[in-house]
Order: sequence, then structure tokens, then C-alpha cells
Amino acid sequence: MDFSLTEEQAAIREMAEAFAQDEVAPQAIEWDQAKHFPVDVLKSAMALGLGGIMVSDAHGGSGLGRVEAVLVYEALAKGCPAFSAYLSIHNMVASMIDKHGSEVQKSAYLPRLCTGELLASYCLTEPSCGSDAAALTTRAERDGDDYLLTGQKMFISGAGATDLYVVMARTGGPGAKGVSAFLVEKDAAGLSFGANEKKMGWNAQPTRTVMLDKVRVKADAMLGPQGAGFKLAMEALDGGRTSIAACSLGGAQSALDKAVTYTNERKAFGQKLNEFQALQFALAEMAIDLEVSRTFLWRAASALDAKLPEATQLCAMAKKHVTDAGFDVANRALQLHGGYGYLADYGIEKIVRDLRVHQILEGTNEIMRLIVARTVIAQA
Amino acid sequence: MDFSLTEEQAAIREMAEAFAQDEVAPQAIEWDQAKHFPVDVLKSAMALGLGGIMVSDAHGGSGLGRVEAVLVYEALAKGCPAFSAYLSIHNMVASMIDKHGSEVQKSAYLPRLCTGELLASYCLTEPSCGSDAAALTTRAERDGDDYLLTGQKMFISGAGATDLYVVMARTGGPGAKGVSAFLVEKDAAGLSFGANEKKMGWNAQPTRTVMLDKVRVKADAMLGPQGAGFKLAMEALDGGRTSIAACSLGGAQSALDKAVTYTNERKAFGQKLNEFQALQFALAEMAIDLEVSRTFLWRAASALDAKLPEATQLCAMAKKHVTDAGFDVANRALQLHGGYGYLADYGIEKIVRDLRVHQILEGTNEIMRLIVARTVIAQA
Amino acid sequence: MDFSLTEEQAAIREMAEAFAQDEVAPQAIEWDQAKHFPVDVLKSAMALGLGGIMVSDAHGGSGLGRVEAVLVYEALAKGCPAFSAYLSIHNMVASMIDKHGSEVQKSAYLPRLCTGELLASYCLTEPSCGSDAAALTTRAERDGDDYLLTGQKMFISGAGATDLYVVMARTGGPGAKGVSAFLVEKDAAGLSFGANEKKMGWNAQPTRTVMLDKVRVKADAMLGPQGAGFKLAMEALDGGRTSIAACSLGGAQSALDKAVTYTNERKAFGQKLNEFQALQFALAEMAIDLEVSRTFLWRAASALDAKLPEATQLCAMAKKHVTDAGFDVANRALQLHGGYGYLADYGIEKIVRDLRVHQILEGTNEIMRLIVARTVIAQA
Amino acid sequence: MDFSLTEEQAAIREMAEAFAQDEVAPQAIEWDQAKHFPVDVLKSAMALGLGGIMVSDAHGGSGLGRVEAVLVYEALAKGCPAFSAYLSIHNMVASMIDKHGSEVQKSAYLPRLCTGELLASYCLTEPSCGSDAAALTTRAERDGDDYLLTGQKMFISGAGATDLYVVMARTGGPGAKGVSAFLVEKDAAGLSFGANEKKMGWNAQPTRTVMLDKVRVKADAMLGPQGAGFKLAMEALDGGRTSIAACSLGGAQSALDKAVTYTNERKAFGQKLNEFQALQFALAEMAIDLEVSRTFLWRAASALDAKLPEATQLCAMAKKHVTDAGFDVANRALQLHGGYGYLADYGIEKIVRDLRVHQILEGTNEIMRLIVARTVIAQA
Repeated sequence: MDFSLTEEQAAIREMAEAFAQDEVAPQAIEWDQAKHFPVDVLKSAMALGLGGIMVSDAHGGSGLGRVEAVLVYEALAKGCPAFSAYLSIHNMVASMIDKHGSEVQKSAYLPRLCTGELLASYCLTEPSCGSDAAALTTRAERDGDDYLLTGQKMFISGAGATDLYVVMARTGGPGAKGVSAFLVEKDAAGLSFGANEKKMGWNAQPTRTVMLDKVRVKADAMLGPQGAGFKLAMEALDGGRTSIAACSLGGAQSALDKAVTYTNERKAFGQKLNEFQALQFALAEMAIDLEVSRTFLWRAASALDAKLPEATQLCAMAKKHVTDAGFDVANRALQLHGGYGYLADYGIEKIVRDLRVHQILEGTNEIMRLIVARTVIAQA
Repeated sequence: MDFSLTEEQAAIREMAEAFAQDEVAPQAIEWDQAKHFPVDVLKSAMALGLGGIMVSDAHGGSGLGRVEAVLVYEALAKGCPAFSAYLSIHNMVASMIDKHGSEVQKSAYLPRLCTGELLASYCLTEPSCGSDAAALTTRAERDGDDYLLTGQKMFISGAGATDLYVVMARTGGPGAKGVSAFLVEKDAAGLSFGANEKKMGWNAQPTRTVMLDKVRVKADAMLGPQGAGFKLAMEALDGGRTSIAACSLGGAQSALDKAVTYTNERKAFGQKLNEFQALQFALAEMAIDLEVSRTFLWRAASALDAKLPEATQLCAMAKKHVTDAGFDVANRALQLHGGYGYLADYGIEKIVRDLRVHQILEGTNEIMRLIVARTVIAQA
Repeated sequence: MDFSLTEEQAAIREMAEAFAQDEVAPQAIEWDQAKHFPVDVLKSAMALGLGGIMVSDAHGGSGLGRVEAVLVYEALAKGCPAFSAYLSIHNMVASMIDKHGSEVQKSAYLPRLCTGELLASYCLTEPSCGSDAAALTTRAERDGDDYLLTGQKMFISGAGATDLYVVMARTGGPGAKGVSAFLVEKDAAGLSFGANEKKMGWNAQPTRTVMLDKVRVKADAMLGPQGAGFKLAMEALDGGRTSIAACSLGGAQSALDKAVTYTNERKAFGQKLNEFQALQFALAEMAIDLEVSRTFLWRAASALDAKLPEATQLCAMAKKHVTDAGFDVANRALQLHGGYGYLADYGIEKIVRDLRVHQILEGTNEIMRLIVARTVIAQA
Repeated sequence: MDFSLTEEQAAIREMAEAFAQDEVAPQAIEWDQAKHFPVDVLKSAMALGLGGIMVSDAHGGSGLGRVEAVLVYEALAKGCPAFSAYLSIHNMVASMIDKHGSEVQKSAYLPRLCTGELLASYCLTEPSCGSDAAALTTRAERDGDDYLLTGQKMFISGAGATDLYVVMARTGGPGAKGVSAFLVEKDAAGLSFGANEKKMGWNAQPTRTVMLDKVRVKADAMLGPQGAGFKLAMEALDGGRTSIAACSLGGAQSALDKAVTYTNERKAFGQKLNEFQALQFALAEMAIDLEVSRTFLWRAASALDAKLPEATQLCAMAKKHVTDAGFDVANRALQLHGGYGYLADYGIEKIVRDLRVHQILEGTNEIMRLIVARTVIAQA
């Protein structure tokens, strides 16, 4: 058993932390208020190798593992969870192509995804099926050498501003096995986007509905084998869940750090706030919750790297546990700031708003319980 | 023991609910997004007698009690917690004048406050003293027949848009007994306002710093006796705490109502959401938490009306319990909406943001614990 | 709205508190350790009118209401929750007879139940049906003028030591409407009892299986109409749930009182424990939770007295909320005692053990959620 | 990073699990009910190398690390937490001697401690100082070549039945630095024991007050340097906290396992309990809480093995987090058993009772927060 970081891991974390501190954190509140998608800063991050963290060297990626990825996402999320989360989605798509793409697809997209010349979006959820993703109704009809994709995808991060969409669509009968994945470029005819959704948080990335009206793609735009789309999508989400958990962790750590600083500076009743025992207890509980979460997240990420059979289970557990803990810690940090915590300028309330959606997306935390329960009950 | 509403109470609640439904709810999301202070709708509410709910008939008020007030605030908060909360602050100031004002002050202000011709703000908190309000440093220096007020007040609801400010300022030595209350009109020379704070929520009311630079007021602008200002301010907060709790209750009830509707309409895996037992449990727990909170709030309000010695203790308990429960219920309601809960259009996330500040203001819930602990320990 | 006790209510509560303090509390730890059923002390309590609190005067009862009953049970539970809880079950049976019995049944049993000459048990639960009580399989077969009862009843409080058993048995087809209630005397042939169960707590009352092997009772031993047994049983449980909640409340209040005393006497690091802010917060939270619970329990009891349509809903809510809060408060009180809390001599750990079962019996708190959810969802 | 067990670790865990299943679990309920200290079974465990898990080979120990130790304690606690916890205390004393003892002390005691010929107790806590252990008042007065120890030690596990007592006593001035550790044999004149305490749980090990009345020991009975006793005691507790956390983990895992089995067998309303979604959620949450706790405990143990500077912090975090989670999981498992959970025969309620003390001893979970807070605040 070994819980230490390698030098390489420590170095990449440090690099991401420095980037977050210098390039992300100073602008995060402004991005949120202006609902600005910082494409330039994303590209700067990608220039450092963070556009294809787990993509193989051969195709322009950094060739790292899942543990390194969660270290990066946590570090970046200290600057801005929404920034880090979008980057993780981009990486998820890149990794799907790296893992399941044809050589042509890899050559066509991976180098440009890794540098950020292309930005990517992941299109699974539809207006009428969220948790029950396998019930999706977007269809891909064969038309000669092409497919025509028709349907709607909802809650799509980056949509409208990104260049490449991996779209899960039905090529066969009902259920998971009738779904295939397609790579759709932004300028495809018939592809359009809804308005940028007004959201509680995650304002540093646009969220739009993606509308597909007989979008024509070549047959070789299919990613992976026919009928494998749902499997690919779910496999990607295993990793995606560790990413989103890492974003909660980083956001919450930043909130705790702010609370540690604030309670050390602010006085009341003639004492520094951190001299009040009840607030000391609060800080301790928050620190414990985060360190416990971090450790477990590392384990889940490690299990993915090691391709352990229990990896899916551990990822679902981590998604649920870490995103719940992260929101709670951020929310308690807000409380420790008193009225100042409620003001946008202090950056705490933004973290609370950003982290709230992590308990919902990439499989709600209710769905995580169902996944976990299935395995637990199977042991009976 | 009697937990039923009188016909009059039921009627005023119904009136407020109808107003909330017709005049407030339809615009609440828009007010939030636009950070709009709906003075016109406030005045419409006041035209119905809600500008001076507890102010005596003789001065234009409705002459009702605290129980009626919390029924009204809950009802209005179903439409918009921030709207209702501002109205409650306006009422708090009106009641302070009704209770402690000279005849001249009452005649000068109450009729116009009751109709909404004047809007009021309550100015206690300062940048460097939140929880320890008695340490306030705004000074009122005697200057002939006048006082000159100098200092800063922070987190002032309505500031800049309201007409009358009750300002707690130091006329004597340190501590609570050196504080007096003053009525300051908006056009007083030396009175100015900071920018409208960017906040997590409560966007339907402006929050500004109030800056006083030798603001000259006549000696008869003092409200209540010299040195009684802190006592007045605290006494007003007893009631204010029930008001803010009522606003949490109404907001949370509205969030639960939305969740009840949503889970009845939305389907997943071939079933309505409310057919899933785990979601049924969630709805039940939310309903219990709110009904329990409501009952206790009624008791605290009742104790104020009956001037029971334990009223302050019960109000502190109610503030803590109901605002915590309210936020939690709203937050769970958001979760039940899945991704839609995160979108502004559904109105749930706004409630969560609005209710968050209730755990902080009018005495943080940490301060409530200290108030309660004092009495509990004194019993030992 | 009126939350005050009448003089009569205050008097009966005071009487019960005095009895609890003098006759119950001093022996409670001993009863627990020796697993002793204090029949003599129960009879002393009944001599004061507590054997038929809600039974009509005409039949020897005290003719009081449900509010008075919960005041009594809370007061007695301060001395010993298990003692009070058994008394409440005895009262529940007496009230069933008072409400639904024939004149003959009333005359035969009520005077003796009220004085404690007879003790009663309530027999609903069976080994294979707990939560789904309507699935009970004990049969009552008609045999001439008699019924022959055959089956098993489990978790029966007082069984083996009590004199009169109200037994729910199937006289008709499956489901709730096939159940009738019978009054069975202890010496009935074919009636026998299992061993006294070894339990976590509630040791001051025996719990046994009641075995019925063709127990012959006259047809007029049926309580209420044929097929009404399940309805009677459930109706009784509405009240029973407020009783058990009252027992949790009293036990928890006693635990909190002990913690208030202990933290005022015990020192650490040169200070009294109650001078540590984190412990002050803990005491405040416990006090709030109990006062909130108490208020809501009064409301539920009041609703039963007023026969409000929402009474069943409020009772289910109160059962869930108060018994959960009661256990948690007692458990936190234990923690505040440090190692001493774990020792039997301090009486805290017994309260925790006693209160634990209240979250389970008279309908588990899971079943309470289902009851509440049904109404909540029906509003959609 | 590596979260896998080595083959050796897996083997020792398997061995301990087998022992727990065969030798411990079948008798655990009986030991609890009879308050029996199973010295014979403890010796059988020690015969397998579990009497000196971390003691060096040279002195008869197994020479393993802290990670192996927590694997063993978790495994044994699946059979009986109180059994495992006593064994861990015995090991803690053995390790103290192994680490700080003179060669004479090591030779004299370690081989016999490892085989179980001698059983050991750890004597730190006193009646008037629990959390503030450094304020202990037991004195060790120099008397020629000897020390005379006088004072009282409370809550001593094994006391009266064990053979060797490591006693922290004051040889110098007030505070931590005036304390030295002594090895006292059971037959020392002046050493006596109080009655076996009646406790909520942990009945498989006796808990007694140890009374020292001028107990004469040779000067070479001092363990470690003069004035180092408190430091030794605290250092031992770092490990002790991981042990006790491991015992909570094992107990809770066993409770969850029982709940998984029970909900798979028991039916209600025509379905197996584990087909009810709300109960599935409960099982999932419990499983997550335990796996998260387990992972973090491994990390804390690993940090001790690696002598990381943050080890003390991680151990305090683990003690708090895992013992809280363990109790909660066991308590929820009880609830899932309904009424059966409350009966001794099912073994669940015993686990709840046993685990309750883990939140208190070896530093209460409140003290753990203070330890953690200190480091967190120091970062400010």
C-alpha cells in the first residue's frame, strides 16, 4: 500500500496549481458574473499538456493516468470548478477517441484536441431522459454511406462554442445495445444550438441544447463498433465521475482555505474567529471530510488505472461521496464567512453554486446509490 | 392549547397567498435575474395593509399581531422570499416607530410607511462588527440641537432605494448601553450609499453600504430614549427572526410544492418519479421538516404576542431551526428536479440562493446557538 | 392560537413529574439491570388516575384528552421511558375498550384496568409480518358461539405478566377488512408465552411471543364489529404514536438535563465543560431539537383531540420526527458525558438503549414516511 | 499510489477473518450477555501471532506493520468488536515495550506478552481527568531505588484480569513533561481493582478502576526516560486510534453484512426488503460510508508505518471519521432489521452498543477535532 505521490505526480499537480493560481483564480469571479467561457485560458492550459491528459503521446497527449488526471482537476478547480469541469469533459471525449477511435479518427482529431485547436462536447442526455440514459431517442438513420442524426441533446457543456461533439444516437432497437456513438463536427448541416441556459452556477461554461435535424455524417464518423455507444458512454463516465469529484474536491478545498484565512483575520467579541472553539470544530470537520474524500477519490482513480473489476463501483461511490462532501464543506465555509460569504466578491458563494451541480450531473447521486446497491445486494 | 387559525388569520393568509400567486410569483425569476427591486409591487402589497401589519390602526396600520405577520410573510415568500423579507424589514422599522416613537414621529412617518409612500431600512451592522453588534462604532455627536452621525452601515436591505433609515449609533461610551437609535431621511446631507452588492441571491432587494459623513439630524430624530438604541434594535430582532424564519418557510414550501408537482409529472425508467420509494421518502421527510418548523414558528410568534418571558429564547430557537430546515428542504427539492433544478427557469435554484442568507442575517445561526445556550446553562 | 397549558394540564403534568421523580427515577437503573417489570409502581401510578387517562369517568377513568396523556407520558419517561411506554400501551388498550367496547365489556374490564387490577397488552405484530400488519395470519375460527384463535403474536409488551390481551385475528378473507379484534384473558386455555426476550433496552417491561393454540373465547369477546379489527388497531396506533413520541421526548429531556448538570460540574483544562463553546453549541442544539419536537407533539395530540382530518398525518409525522430527535439528543447527551456516559450508573446509556426501539415500534419510522408520502403525493 | 494488499497482507487478513468467524463470532453474543472475558480465545489468537503483531521477531512478535494490524483488528471485530479492541490494547502495550523498553524489559515481558502468557493493560485516564490527560495526578515518588505509585486510574480495559499494567504517573512537576511511564505487575503490593463496571457494551472485556496505594516498583520498571511518559502514551495512542477505528470498521461491516442478508430474506408487502428502493439506498449509503472509511484508515495506518510528519493528524482524522461512521452504519443496520434488530439474539444491537464507546475512548471525537483544528489553523 502506498499513498504517496510520485515525483512526476507531485510535479504535475504543482504545475496545475500554479496555473490555477495565476491564470484561473484571478478571473474566476469575473467569468462567473459575465457568464464568460474562457476559451483562451483553456487553450493555455492545453498548451501545458492538459488538453489530452490521458491521451497517448503518439497522438499528442500527455500519456498520463487517471490519478494524474484527478490531481490536475482538483488543482484547477481550486481556481474555478467550472473551468476545471469543462476541461475534464473535453479530456473525456479525447480519451474516448484515443481508446476507441479508428486510426483515421485519432489522427484527425486527437492532435488538435490536445492543443485545444478543437474543443469537445459530450452529448448523451436528452430532455426526456436524464437518469435513464439508455432510453435515449435521438436516432441515427442509415442513408447510403451516411447516417442522418435527428434528436435533441440537453445540458451539453460547451455546446455552441465547441467544435466536436460525440453524440450517442440510436442505430438499433430499444435499450442500451441499440445505441452507437458518432463524432459530429460543429459545422455539420442541421446542427444547431439552443440559448445558453441561465444556471445557478457553472457560468464559466455555456450549457445549451444541441438540436440535430437530419445531421448528415459519414459512416466512418461512428466511434467504436455499432451498438457499442452506450457502453462507451458509460465507460467514459466512470472516469468522468472521478473528474467531477475532483472538481468538487478542489472547489471545496479552496472554500476551506478561504475560511481558514478569514477566521484567522476576522475578529468578533475581541477574539479572532478561529479562537472560538465551535468554529475550530467546524474547521476540523471540514478538513477531515475533505481529506477523507481525497483519499477515497485517489483510490477510485487508481482502480481505474489498474482496471480493477470493482472500479465502476468505486467510481460511483466516489462520485456520490466526494460531491456531497464537497458541497457541504463549501456551504459550511460560506457560513463561516457570515454576511461576506453571501457576497460575490468573496468568491465563496460562487463555489457553492458551482459545486451544487456536481451532485446531479454525470449520473445523479441517487443513480450512484442504485449502482452501488446493485453490487451490495448481489453479495447477499 | 389551540393550533388552529382564527377566521381572521385564515383570511389574511389567504389574501397574502393570493397576492403572492398573482403579483409576486409570476415575476420573481425575472426580478432575480434583473436584480430588480419591485417597489411598485411592494406598494401594492402595502395598499392591502401589509405595510404596517402590526402598526396600530390609529396610525394607519393593520393592528394585527405577530402570528398574523408570520402567516403573511410565509405566504408572500411562497412567491418570492426576497420580496417578503424586504417587506418584513420595512414592517420591523414601522413597528419600532409605532412602539417607541414620539407622537410627532408616529404622525410624521407611520401613515406614509403603512401605505408605502415611504420605504424603510434598518441599519445596525457595520463592516467590522457583525455578530458583535454592540461593538458598533458609528458615532452620533451632539452639536447644539442636533446630532452629527458618522460611520458606515453594511448589508443594508433596501438602502439607496428607501426613504427612511433607522440608524443605531453611539451616543455614549462603549457597549450596548452607549447606543441610541435615530431616524434618518434619505435626503439628509452627508448620507450616501455604496454600490448595490453582487450577492448569491436576494436580488429582488438592493443591499448597499450606508455611509454617514456628519449627517445632521435634529435631536428629536432620536427614536426612544438615549442609550436605548441597542435594546430597541434587539427587541425588534426578536420579531425579525420570526419574520425571516417565515420567509424561509414559505420559500421552502414553494420548493417542496414544485418538487411534488415535478415528481408527479416526470418519468424515468417507465415510472413517474413519485412512484420511486426513495423519492417518496425524500418528499415525506421534507414535508415533515416543514410542518414541524411551521408549528414551532407559530409558537415563537405566539409567545411574542403574549409577551412571555421565554419569547426571546423561542425566537432564537425558531430562527435557527426554521432557517436551517428551510434551506435544507429547498436544496433537497432542487436535487429532486435533477438537472432542471439547476436552471434558473424552474425557480428552484433561486429559492435555494435566497434562503441561504437567512441562516446568516438577523443574527447568524451560530449566534442563535449562543443565545439559546446561555439560557440552557443558566438552568444548571 | 394558544400554546399554553391550562391549569389542569399543568397540574397533571406536575403530578406525573413528581411521581416520576419520587417513584420511578430512583429505581429505573435497577429495573433495567434486573430486567424487572415494576408492577407495583405501575399500580401506584394507576392509583393516581394514570391507568385510564382518557377513559371516561363513568368507567373509572380520568376522562382526560390526548394532550394530557402526552404530558403524562413525557413526564413519566423522564423517570424511565420503558415504564412510561408500557403504561401508555395499557392505556391504549383501555381506550380501545372505552371507545369500541360493549357495555358489558366496559363494565367488565375498564374499572379494573383503570386501577391496575388488570394490566393489558396489545397484540398485533406477528413473526412474519411487522410493517405489513394487515397481512396477519392469526386466525379466529367460528366454533358455535365461540371463536378459536390460533397463531402467534410477537414483540408483545407486558406479555406473560399482564391479564388482558387485545388480539387482532383474521375472521374473514385476506387484507385489512378480514381482521377482527378480540379480548382474551390470560388464563384462557391454549394461551401461552415465549421466553422474555433479551433486548437492547426496554428492560423494565417484558417482551414475549404470545402463542395461541385454539384459544377459545366467547363470541362476545369480539371488540367492535366483525371485520373492524384492523381499523381499530390502526386508530389506536394514531394515539399510540403520540404516546411513544412523548416517551422519547421525556427520556431525551432527562438525558439533556443530565448533560446540563454534568457539563456544569465537570472540569477539563481548567474550565467547566459548559464554558467550552463547542459544548455550548451542542447543548443549544439539543435544547432546540427537543423544544421543537415537544411543540409539534402537542400539535399532533391536539389534532387527535379535535378529531381533525389531518390527525393521522400529524401523528405519523410526530412519531417519526420526535422519536428520531429523541434518540439523537440522548445519544449526544451520552457523548457529552465522555466515558461516564457509557457506564450504567449514570443512567444515560440506558436512555439511549430505551429510546432506540421507539424508532421501530408502533410502525417503523420508515412506515411513517410512507404514510406521510401518500398524503403529500396525493396533493399533486 | 497503490491501494492493493500484498499477498502477505491478504493472507494475514484472511487468517484473522477465519479465526473471527470460527472462534469469535459464534460466542460473541454469549460473552456479551454473560460479561465474560474470553481469555482462552484471546490466547488462541495470540498463538497465531496476534499477541505482538508489531513486536519485532527477535522478541517473539510477528514483526508486522500498522497496516497489517488494522487489517487484523477489522477482521477480528467482525466477530466481536470488544474482543478485537482488547487485543489491540494488549498489542499497544507490547509495542510500547518493544519500542521504548530496555533490553531487560523486553526480554522479561515481550515473549510472554506475544504468546498471551501475560495480558496487558494501559493505564492513563483518571477519574478527574479524561480529555485533559496531561493533568493526571497519580504520583510516583522516588523512594531509594524504588518508586512508590499512588493514585487511581479509571476505565482500564482488562484490569483485574490482566497481568501487566503500563501506568502513567507523575515523577515531576505539572504538565505533560512531568509524567513517566511504569510497568507494574499485577501482584504488586498496594495494587487493587474496583468492581467490573456495568457498561452499555464492551462486555467481553472487564473495565475496572485501578487503585494504586504506594505501589512499590523498582526504578528500572520505568518505561522509557523519565519525563517521557506522556509522550510515549500519546505516541501509542496514534496507533491506538487506528486500532479502535479498525474495530469500528469491522463491527460496522458485520452489521452491514447482517443487514444485507436480512433484507434479502425478509419479505413485506409481497416483496423482499431489498427490493424496496428506499432500503436499497440505505444499503448503498452504508456501503459507501464503510468503504470510504476503510480507505482512509489504511492511509492513516500507512502514514504511521512510513513515519510521515502528518501521521498524527491523519490518525486523529481517522479516529473521528471512522468511529462516527461505524456507529452510524451499525445503527442504521439495526433499523433495517426492524424489531429483530432490537433483540440480543440477532447480534446487531450488541454491535451498536460496542461501537458506541469508540467515539469516546482513546481521545474523544471532540478532542480529535481539537487536534485537527490546531494543524488546520496553523496553516493560516
